[in-house]
Amino acid sequence: MAKKIEISPVDGRLGILLPGLGAVSTTFIAGVMLARKGALKPFGSLTQMQTIRLGKRDESKSPLIRDFVPLAKLSDLEFAAWDIFPDNAYEAAMKAGVLSKEHLGLVKDELEKIKPMKAVFDRNYVKNIEGENVKEGKSKLELANQLREDIRKFKQEKKLSRMVAVWCASTETYTEAQPVHATIESFEKGLAQSNPAISPSMIYAYAAIMEGVPYVNGAPHLTLDIPALGELARQKGIPIAGKDFKTGQTLVKTAVAPMLKMRMLGVRGWFSTNILGNRDGLVLDDAGSFKSKEMSKKSSLEYIFQPDMYPDLYKGMYHKVRIEYYPPKNDDKEGWDNIDIFGWMGYPMQIKINFLCKDSILAAPIVLDLALFMDLARRAKMSGMQEWLSFYFKAPMHAPSVYPEHDISIQHMKLKNTLRYLMGKDLITHLGMEYYDYWGEGKIEG
Amino acid sequence: MAKKIEISPVDGRLGILLPGLGAVSTTFIAGVMLARKGALKPFGSLTQMQTIRLGKRDESKSPLIRDFVPLAKLSDLEFAAWDIFPDNAYEAAMKAGVLSKEHLGLVKDELEKIKPMKAVFDRNYVKNIEGENVKEGKSKLELANQLREDIRKFKQEKKLSRMVAVWCASTETYTEAQPVHATIESFEKGLAQSNPAISPSMIYAYAAIMEGVPYVNGAPHLTLDIPALGELARQKGIPIAGKDFKTGQTLVKTAVAPMLKMRMLGVRGWFSTNILGNRDGLVLDDAGSFKSKEMSKKSSLEYIFQPDMYPDLYKGMYHKVRIEYYPPKNDDKEGWDNIDIFGWMGYPMQIKINFLCKDSILAAPIVLDLALFMDLARRAKMSGMQEWLSFYFKAPMHAPSVYPEHDISIQHMKLKNTLRYLMGKDLITHLGMEYYDYWGEGKIEG
Amino acid sequence: MAKKIEISPVDGRLGILLPGLGAVSTTFIAGVMLARKGALKPFGSLTQMQTIRLGKRDESKSPLIRDFVPLAKLSDLEFAAWDIFPDNAYEAAMKAGVLSKEHLGLVKDELEKIKPMKAVFDRNYVKNIEGENVKEGKSKLELANQLREDIRKFKQEKKLSRMVAVWCASTETYTEAQPVHATIESFEKGLAQSNPAISPSMIYAYAAIMEGVPYVNGAPHLTLDIPALGELARQKGIPIAGKDFKTGQTLVKTAVAPMLKMRMLGVRGWFSTNILGNRDGLVLDDAGSFKSKEMSKKSSLEYIFQPDMYPDLYKGMYHKVRIEYYPPKNDDKEGWDNIDIFGWMGYPMQIKINFLCKDSILAAPIVLDLALFMDLARRAKMSGMQEWLSFYFKAPMHAPSVYPEHDISIQHMKLKNTLRYLMGKDLITHLGMEYYDYWGEGKIEG
Amino acid sequence: MAKKIEISPVDGRLGILLPGLGAVSTTFIAGVMLARKGALKPFGSLTQMQTIRLGKRDESKSPLIRDFVPLAKLSDLEFAAWDIFPDNAYEAAMKAGVLSKEHLGLVKDELEKIKPMKAVFDRNYVKNIEGENVKEGKSKLELANQLREDIRKFKQEKKLSRMVAVWCASTETYTEAQPVHATIESFEKGLAQSNPAISPSMIYAYAAIMEGVPYVNGAPHLTLDIPALGELARQKGIPIAGKDFKTGQTLVKTAVAPMLKMRMLGVRGWFSTNILGNRDGLVLDDAGSFKSKEMSKKSSLEYIFQPDMYPDLYKGMYHKVRIEYYPPKNDDKEGWDNIDIFGWMGYPMQIKINFLCKDSILAAPIVLDLALFMDLARRAKMSGMQEWLSFYFKAPMHAPSVYPEHDISIQHMKLKNTLRYLMGKDLITHLGMEYYDYWGEGKIEG
Repeated sequence: MAKKIEISPVDGRLGILLPGLGAVSTTFIAGVMLARKGALKPFGSLTQMQTIRLGKRDESKSPLIRDFVPLAKLSDLEFAAWDIFPDNAYEAAMKAGVLSKEHLGLVKDELEKIKPMKAVFDRNYVKNIEGENVKEGKSKLELANQLREDIRKFKQEKKLSRMVAVWCASTETYTEAQPVHATIESFEKGLAQSNPAISPSMIYAYAAIMEGVPYVNGAPHLTLDIPALGELARQKGIPIAGKDFKTGQTLVKTAVAPMLKMRMLGVRGWFSTNILGNRDGLVLDDAGSFKSKEMSKKSSLEYIFQPDMYPDLYKGMYHKVRIEYYPPKNDDKEGWDNIDIFGWMGYPMQIKINFLCKDSILAAPIVLDLALFMDLARRAKMSGMQEWLSFYFKAPMHAPSVYPEHDISIQHMKLKNTLRYLMGKDLITHLGMEYYDYWGEGKIEG
Repeated sequence: MAKKIEISPVDGRLGILLPGLGAVSTTFIAGVMLARKGALKPFGSLTQMQTIRLGKRDESKSPLIRDFVPLAKLSDLEFAAWDIFPDNAYEAAMKAGVLSKEHLGLVKDELEKIKPMKAVFDRNYVKNIEGENVKEGKSKLELANQLREDIRKFKQEKKLSRMVAVWCASTETYTEAQPVHATIESFEKGLAQSNPAISPSMIYAYAAIMEGVPYVNGAPHLTLDIPALGELARQKGIPIAGKDFKTGQTLVKTAVAPMLKMRMLGVRGWFSTNILGNRDGLVLDDAGSFKSKEMSKKSSLEYIFQPDMYPDLYKGMYHKVRIEYYPPKNDDKEGWDNIDIFGWMGYPMQIKINFLCKDSILAAPIVLDLALFMDLARRAKMSGMQEWLSFYFKAPMHAPSVYPEHDISIQHMKLKNTLRYLMGKDLITHLGMEYYDYWGEGKIEG
Repeated sequence: MAKKIEISPVDGRLGILLPGLGAVSTTFIAGVMLARKGALKPFGSLTQMQTIRLGKRDESKSPLIRDFVPLAKLSDLEFAAWDIFPDNAYEAAMKAGVLSKEHLGLVKDELEKIKPMKAVFDRNYVKNIEGENVKEGKSKLELANQLREDIRKFKQEKKLSRMVAVWCASTETYTEAQPVHATIESFEKGLAQSNPAISPSMIYAYAAIMEGVPYVNGAPHLTLDIPALGELARQKGIPIAGKDFKTGQTLVKTAVAPMLKMRMLGVRGWFSTNILGNRDGLVLDDAGSFKSKEMSKKSSLEYIFQPDMYPDLYKGMYHKVRIEYYPPKNDDKEGWDNIDIFGWMGYPMQIKINFLCKDSILAAPIVLDLALFMDLARRAKMSGMQEWLSFYFKAPMHAPSVYPEHDISIQHMKLKNTLRYLMGKDLITHLGMEYYDYWGEGKIEG
Repeated sequence: MAKKIEISPVDGRLGILLPGLGAVSTTFIAGVMLARKGALKPFGSLTQMQTIRLGKRDESKSPLIRDFVPLAKLSDLEFAAWDIFPDNAYEAAMKAGVLSKEHLGLVKDELEKIKPMKAVFDRNYVKNIEGENVKEGKSKLELANQLREDIRKFKQEKKLSRMVAVWCASTETYTEAQPVHATIESFEKGLAQSNPAISPSMIYAYAAIMEGVPYVNGAPHLTLDIPALGELARQKGIPIAGKDFKTGQTLVKTAVAPMLKMRMLGVRGWFSTNILGNRDGLVLDDAGSFKSKEMSKKSSLEYIFQPDMYPDLYKGMYHKVRIEYYPPKNDDKEGWDNIDIFGWMGYPMQIKINFLCKDSILAAPIVLDLALFMDLARRAKMSGMQEWLSFYFKAPMHAPSVYPEHDISIQHMKLKNTLRYLMGKDLITHLGMEYYDYWGEGKIEG
């Protein structure tokens, strides 16, 4: 049994800062409020509902995660958000149309109090929407400073002891790292000069980290991946995590693809189409934002299948991902996958998966879990990228020396063994030799 | 690093004994022959194609399983089978219609040499088919002795050093354990008295174990589960494994259901229908045989979801499994699943999965892997039920003190960590702390 | 142009009598009330929304059906129902859970006034439900007389000029015609003697016809098909129609199957499964009621494909229909069809159809249309079975000399050409020669 | 009963000229050869297998179409083709991979004799492929003359009495009508001047019509639709037909959409995606060719639903059609449709259709039927566009005064009533009053 890591206790209130006050954010906030009232349950959240096995399978020792590791309580949470539209959280939630009017009505008063702060916005990064609740400033540095001021004000007003920021706004257009992103110095210079390669999301992340606030990137665009922000997080001792919440189709793919590989079933082609109708769909209807998402969604299969290790099975697999804006679905999202596989002697088979899901319903508990686990990481003094939270992301951040882990079971095991590790408990290996007397010599330590 | 287990070397030829020479067996045998010729590849087989990671993710040390543990080679295999129909393996394969005429033609001569031994058959256990290639005997004990004689003859004629038996015949009718199954003594007395509660599959298993041959139950009926045979295997030091090959729909279910649970997504209902047309379908069209299969297929979700631990999420889930005989599919098999789930705040979503698969194509590599791994277990002197092979079964055998493990990822990890354990290598935990410098103190041993 | 048929004018109010006040009836009644208020629209109803083309394609003369033929108006309708449960229409609708609480609230007062009359019920005909709001009588004849009394009372109280009855209650168990059903005399004698072969639905139909009320059978069981009731209808000059509303899966099948036949695509197999969760599903979970439904659902394909005329294409087609009680769906109903077809040179293809529908939403407008069209038929003095309404039924009644027409397009054409015929307008043939100058001789009369 | 149209008898052999010798053409030719040998059957062909009802439903008078109207026999057909690749029909069929090697082997010798004539090709019209078997000429007029020479030579060598041409080559890029297309004069001048707005397919059609050969356009691009060619056909008395064979997804859509409209079920959205992998898919992967196809595929729903007549039901329906190149499917083609409908009171429902089809298997019998029916039309002296053949097309040609007819049932009725009309038989109206004695006055003539 390893030594327990030292974790600061949970004292005071935790503030959650949300760039974006749209469908995901309001579903998350309203849900937390409804759960606090006991009206509805926070299904989908590991921090609220999942147990963790400690010790042997026959010991029946499986506390709730939230009883095992010290996490902030729902009752300790405060919310703040930035958005380009001035609607308060109740209005925004009604427009999003995810939770029913009846349910939102139960927490209307609370929701109405959450009014979005002015957002940092740049039409070059998000083409298909436009709003007026936007900050103005002489330079991107000035905008960053305004955000930092917002953060400090939120902390002060709500008397918070800690904060976490989670990006829940739209997907920015696809970009690649530029020289300005290379170092903290070049980045700060770029901010001052309003370098066009610095996107709004980078400004938010910079502001958060500078204020000592852990930052999560829920969208597929480049933010924390640039060297400047990674280095800044490490220097400041701040945990960061990303990217792109793993919600609908990819969630299913990262469960099904590993099964195929475990069973050594080959894949000739995988066609994924996705129809969705909310603001997310509208934004992704722009080629640049789509490319960000597509790159994020496509990578999972490449890594899971390891075509270089298994060329006969997966080399040359034709993988096509389509995202289609289709307004009749509203916040509903629907994935259809056609998977052309082959087995013994190369004989072909097919799997079709149709996932009728709800984007924000799947994303909201992820926002909650990440906020609470990032706060835990901060209190455990874990800095830099948190690979153990890969479980929640379509394109998980990872050390340069290793490939990203996309298999959802492995991600889950990684997350839970990390919690066990932090608390000084034995890791689980699923060996399970101890229940059997294979060699007739009595129990074995496994 | 643990101590390596002592494993006898692979010397001489391995005989594979197959009760049943139908679609599965002939696809397996013909496939091995085709692979030996280099004509086609044994996709779907871990023993032939899968690698195993040793050490850290960044060490790139991933040998093939067959290069890591000492397994029999395809070139060392010999085959024998029992069947109620007198067709040789080529004729049976042509009737099964799984592999193409063109492919079977390449190994026609070899296949024709495999002629089924007379089978032990009892119409009370399999209603919808009837054949004449059947043993006669005064008692079930005499039938068992005839089988033992067959086994010894096979060993002698083919000059085998070791053997393994894998049940690939039809599903017997549903039965529950009776007093006659309780002890070795009662069972042997029952054999002598031709007790009707002793099924043909039990006679095969008894004969195999008595001859020192590991036995695998690929069907869902009761065989190895009775105390008498479990005890016999332990006494004789013989590994046994079962039951019911995890091929089509359950394979997918045991990948998707764990994902739902990992993510704390609730399930209100799961409807599975399965249409299939081969002899398997015909046999299952009988209520008794169907019940065996249904019991086997239904249990997986109950165990994966742990409704007692998660009553809000899974208690009262309506799970219905239907198997439909539908001749137009022939050996093709098609599963359709409708899964009614709910997430954050109880909002409903749906998943539909349509699996167009081929029964024997999925089963054949399982027969191969189980034969080779059971032979490994025998050489490693592992006796009794081999839970680490759960990966291959719909209803895996397990120690009374623990629940069966149905999650395919956990089963896979269990299998691979067992191989690492046997070879004295470090187990994998997926913790992966060592790639990160979370606490700024240099690499950590994880 | 044919002579117009004489049709009595629409004077006074029309009463609609409904055996059964469950999901279908209440959805129908509440919908009519909501449409009268202008709150929502009666989508799905031909009598309310469909147009009918008169004359040539380029004349653009397409009045609404309701403006073309004299139909009762929604504002003229009154409702009465019998049910074994005493819930009023509002309570029953809330339990059915089809229309939302919000929508039902708009017509709550009106709905609450509809209280079910005591029903004629016989547990031998419907196994899985039981209620107490049931008539008692010394004989089935006495029960019939009580129903007749109910009908007269309804007419008097609501000051109705005409009435129509539409069976919307549960499916009775499967039965076949008996001697008692052969003639009016034998049937009336059977009523007096409470012959067990006389089902409740027959008693309703008898009562209605005797009172001069057109009767529609919306369920698959035997009612109007027996010679006694057919003859009675003709003698009394009353129109009758049935049977089994064509709502979900069969609706789609009778559109897709004709397309396959038109194109001479062969069918090797058609597997239909249907999962449903409301009281309908519960009742059909009984083998007897299921058989009634299965017989009704299966016949369509046999007639559409004409296997005797096209043996190479359709002889030996394997058609399997399953209905599964699956409570998580509630009133939602879901069909999944797998169709194995073949084309040019016998090469195989497949179609899969997944219909996520709502039983009562599909049935309600059929109830409305049938009520209004049957009233029209009555005023046009059309007696006996109304084959031109086949469009609405899974198993349409038909003259003994002809096969039933299942192709939905032909049924639709039959319905519309009948309306044109009644009003003395030209029938449509879709020849359309007149728009082209094929022979260079100017327009042709086509 | 109308007067029979005069139709020249079927004397001598019929030559079929095919621009394009790819998957469709070779599947068609090889299939005819296989059918002539009696090896396999021409399923999918109305001219070979369908019957036609004459007279009343109870008269049982339903001859085969080919026994009712005078059609060329399979044994009288000769084939010629142009293609940009020099492969003979056997080689091309093997590459296409539609029919099995075993089946093609049965007619190898015959197929090998069909060698493609040099094609007229223009890279500006088809981007993604290139071949060398291409004609050269100083002007487009000269190319047209070379085609005419090919046609005459074919007629002479095979001693043909009649010919028909059917375009089976790739889809050309989307274009709209230009001034050069306006009149015969401007078109012929454009040919001489090699006007870039004249596509290869127009040159083929021009050459055919000038040689007195009926021409069919099986692809979605503009050819016969331009005024010049329509006028030319009328002047020369030649029948023409088009466009775009109705094979996979649209075939199903034009059966399902009319059903929805018949039932007055509204449609909020219809999303169609189509994955296909053959040369057709490759060509359509170019934006220009895709647009031709998309325009053709999209129009059907607009016309079927008549949104102007039914704004509440269909106005604003979101219809999206995607075609995706996906090589793993080869000649297989797979459509997935998601249809969001609503019924009574606006309540939503969904239909999902997955069609696993084979492009050429569906197209080949259409080529045969069109060739034989166009030859019939020619012998019946019907000139200009043949709307009665709409049944076979995604975007049927139609008189300017009328909308195109997309409903497959109406198209089928139009086709069959046209045949009845040509032969002087009564048209079918599906009224069917004569089987019933509605008014108790004896049989009525209906």
